[in-house]
Amino acid sequence: MSELQYLEVPDLMLQKGGILPKARLAWRSIGELNAARDNAVLVPSWYTGNDDTSEMFFTGEQRALDPSKYFIILTNLLGNGRSSSPSNTPAPQERSRFPTVTYHDNVALQHKLVTEVLGIERLRLVTGWSMGAAQTYQWAAQYPDAVEAAVPIAGSARCASYNAVFLYSLRRTLMLDPVFEQGFYSRPPIEGLKAFATIYAGWGVSEPFFREKAYSAFGADDHADFVANFWEPFFLQHDANDLLAMLRTWELGDISDSTAYEGDLEAALAGIKARLITVPVDNDRYFPPVDEEYATSKIPNGECRTVNSIWGHMAPMNLDNAEVFDNILREALG
Amino acid sequence: MSELQYLEVPDLMLQKGGILPKARLAWRSIGELNAARDNAVLVPSWYTGNDDTSEMFFTGEQRALDPSKYFIILTNLLGNGRSSSPSNTPAPQERSRFPTVTYHDNVALQHKLVTEVLGIERLRLVTGWSMGAAQTYQWAAQYPDAVEAAVPIAGSARCASYNAVFLYSLRRTLMLDPVFEQGFYSRPPIEGLKAFATIYAGWGVSEPFFREKAYSAFGADDHADFVANFWEPFFLQHDANDLLAMLRTWELGDISDSTAYEGDLEAALAGIKARLITVPVDNDRYFPPVDEEYATSKIPNGECRTVNSIWGHMAPMNLDNAEVFDNILREALG
Repeated sequence: MSELQYLEVPDLMLQKGGILPKARLAWRSIGELNAARDNAVLVPSWYTGNDDTSEMFFTGEQRALDPSKYFIILTNLLGNGRSSSPSNTPAPQERSRFPTVTYHDNVALQHKLVTEVLGIERLRLVTGWSMGAAQTYQWAAQYPDAVEAAVPIAGSARCASYNAVFLYSLRRTLMLDPVFEQGFYSRPPIEGLKAFATIYAGWGVSEPFFREKAYSAFGADDHADFVANFWEPFFLQHDANDLLAMLRTWELGDISDSTAYEGDLEAALAGIKARLITVPVDNDRYFPPVDEEYATSKIPNGECRTVNSIWGHMAPMNLDNAEVFDNILREALG
Repeated sequence: MSELQYLEVPDLMLQKGGILPKARLAWRSIGELNAARDNAVLVPSWYTGNDDTSEMFFTGEQRALDPSKYFIILTNLLGNGRSSSPSNTPAPQERSRFPTVTYHDNVALQHKLVTEVLGIERLRLVTGWSMGAAQTYQWAAQYPDAVEAAVPIAGSARCASYNAVFLYSLRRTLMLDPVFEQGFYSRPPIEGLKAFATIYAGWGVSEPFFREKAYSAFGADDHADFVANFWEPFFLQHDANDLLAMLRTWELGDISDSTAYEGDLEAALAGIKARLITVPVDNDRYFPPVDEEYATSKIPNGECRTVNSIWGHMAPMNLDNAEVFDNILREALG
C-alpha cells in the first residue's frame, strides 16, 4: 500500500469565488495500473471519511474492489483534514477563513490527478458513499467521457431541501457553542460537538434501527448510550471548522450548478454518459430512493437499485451488507 | 365561552419525587354538561399548545367536537405557561428549579377536576394530539373506568427510543446557548431557540413535505425560509424553561410507569377498558404507525387507523384534514 501523496495546484480558482493559493489533494492508490491503463477505479471519501476508511469499508481481496485486479485511487475530500482544509491551511485562509469549496472544485482537482499525474483518460469506475456518492454523480456529469461506470451509494445528484434542513440544524448548533468563537477556538467546542453528535444520531440510521435496538451492536443499551458510546467519540475526533467546511460543500451539492447546465438538473442528468447504477437505502433518512428513481429516470444508461437495511444511511458501514453492495459493483465493473 | 379557570391543589405529591406546594391546573369548558352528566369530552393540550389552540383546531359547529352537543373540557399541560410551569411558579421552584412532572401527575390533576369539581364519573371521550394523545393513553390506563372512548391522535403510550433521541438533541442544543445560563437567563436565549426551531423543522413534518415544497403553504420558498418564517417565530414565543419542562414530561411518557404496572407495557395496554382508536399518520417522523399497531393489538377494545398525510406529525394542524380526523372522532362518540 502506497504512502499518502499530495497533488499541489497553485492558485486554484474556486467555483464560488476566490482562490486557494496552494490547493492540496491528498490521495493514494492500491493495486497496479495495467498497461492499457483501463483498470482504474476512483473512490472519493465521504463526510468525516478519508482514504483509509474508503479502503477499509470498500476494498480488499474477495471484495468487488480487489487491489489484485484494479488500480484503486483513494481521494480525500477538501476539508477532511488531509486535503486542503480549515485545519491545515495557513493564514489568511485558516480555520473559518477557509473559502467555500464545492464538489465541482473537488472533482476538478481529482480529474487533474487522474489525467495529468496518472495519465488515465477514462476511469473504469467511480464509486463512493454519501458525499462520495455525490462526487461520483459530479464526476459523471462534469467529465462524461472520462467515466465508464458510476455507482453512487446512498447519495444524490443534488442536495434535497429536506437534507439541507438537517445540515442547517447541525451548523447552527455547533456554532452556538460559546467556545466555538466563530471558528477561532482555543480548545475544541466539546459541548457543541456533543450536541452535533446527538442530532446526527437521529438522522444517521433509522426509526426501526432504534425500535429494534440495533444499537446493541455498538454496545449501547439505549439511545443515550448510543450517543455517548458511538456518536460523541466519533465527532469529537474531528475539527469543528473542517466539519463545517464539508457541510457547506454537502449542502451546495448540485451537478447542474455549472456554466454548462445553469441549474437545469434534468439536462445535467441527461448529459451523463456512464452506465450509472445508483444504490439508495430504503430506510435512509436523507437520501430517499424516490429521488434516486427520479435521477436515474433521466440518465440514458441509469438504473436504481434500492438496498433494504434498518441501518439506513449507514448501511454500507455494516459489513454484513458488504456482499450486497459488492455484487452491484461487480455488475458495474462488467 | 368560559373564562380560563384554575384548579389549585395544595402540596401535590409528584410521581418522580418532591411536591408542588400549590399545583395549578388551568382549564376551561365550552358547551353545556347535560343532566345525565354523560356528554363530557376532555381534550388535553399538546406540546406548546393550550386550551385556545385545542379549541381552534379540534372543536366547532359542524366539527365532531361540537359545543352544542358536548361539554368540552380543555385542559392545559403542566409546563405550558398556563398551568403550573417554570415561568409562573414562585421560588424555590421557579425556572429550572421547577420539578419533574409526568403525564401521571397531569392526569391525576385532570381527574380531580373532572370528578371533584365537575362531578363527572365517566368521560364520554378523551382525545388529543401528540402530547395530548399521550395524556389520552394515560387517562385510559390510569382511570380505566372513567373513560368510555379514547382517541389518541399522532401520539404514543410510551415514548420510543427514536423519539427520545430527537428530544435529547433539542434539550442539549437549547441549553448550549450561553445566554441560557442554566435557566436563569436575563433575556430569552434567542440563538438557542432558533437552533431548537431548526432541528424541529426536520422532524415536525416529513421528507415528502419538503420534496413537494408544501412549505409554500407557509409562504416559504425553501427550507431556510420555512425555518425563518414559521419555526423560529413559533418557538421564540415560548419560555425556554417551559419548553424544557414539557420535553422532560414527553420523554418520560410511559403508561406502564406506575405501581400498578411496574413497567409492563403489555399489561398496562391490556388494562385499558375504553374503546380506543389510535390515529397515527403514515409520514409521522416520531410516532410511526407500527408502534400504534402494536399498542392496539394489546388493547382489548383497541383499533389503529392510520391517516395519510405528507404533513406527517403536523397533519392535524392542516385543517384540510379536519374531516378525516372528525369522522374517526364521530365514530368513537357513537
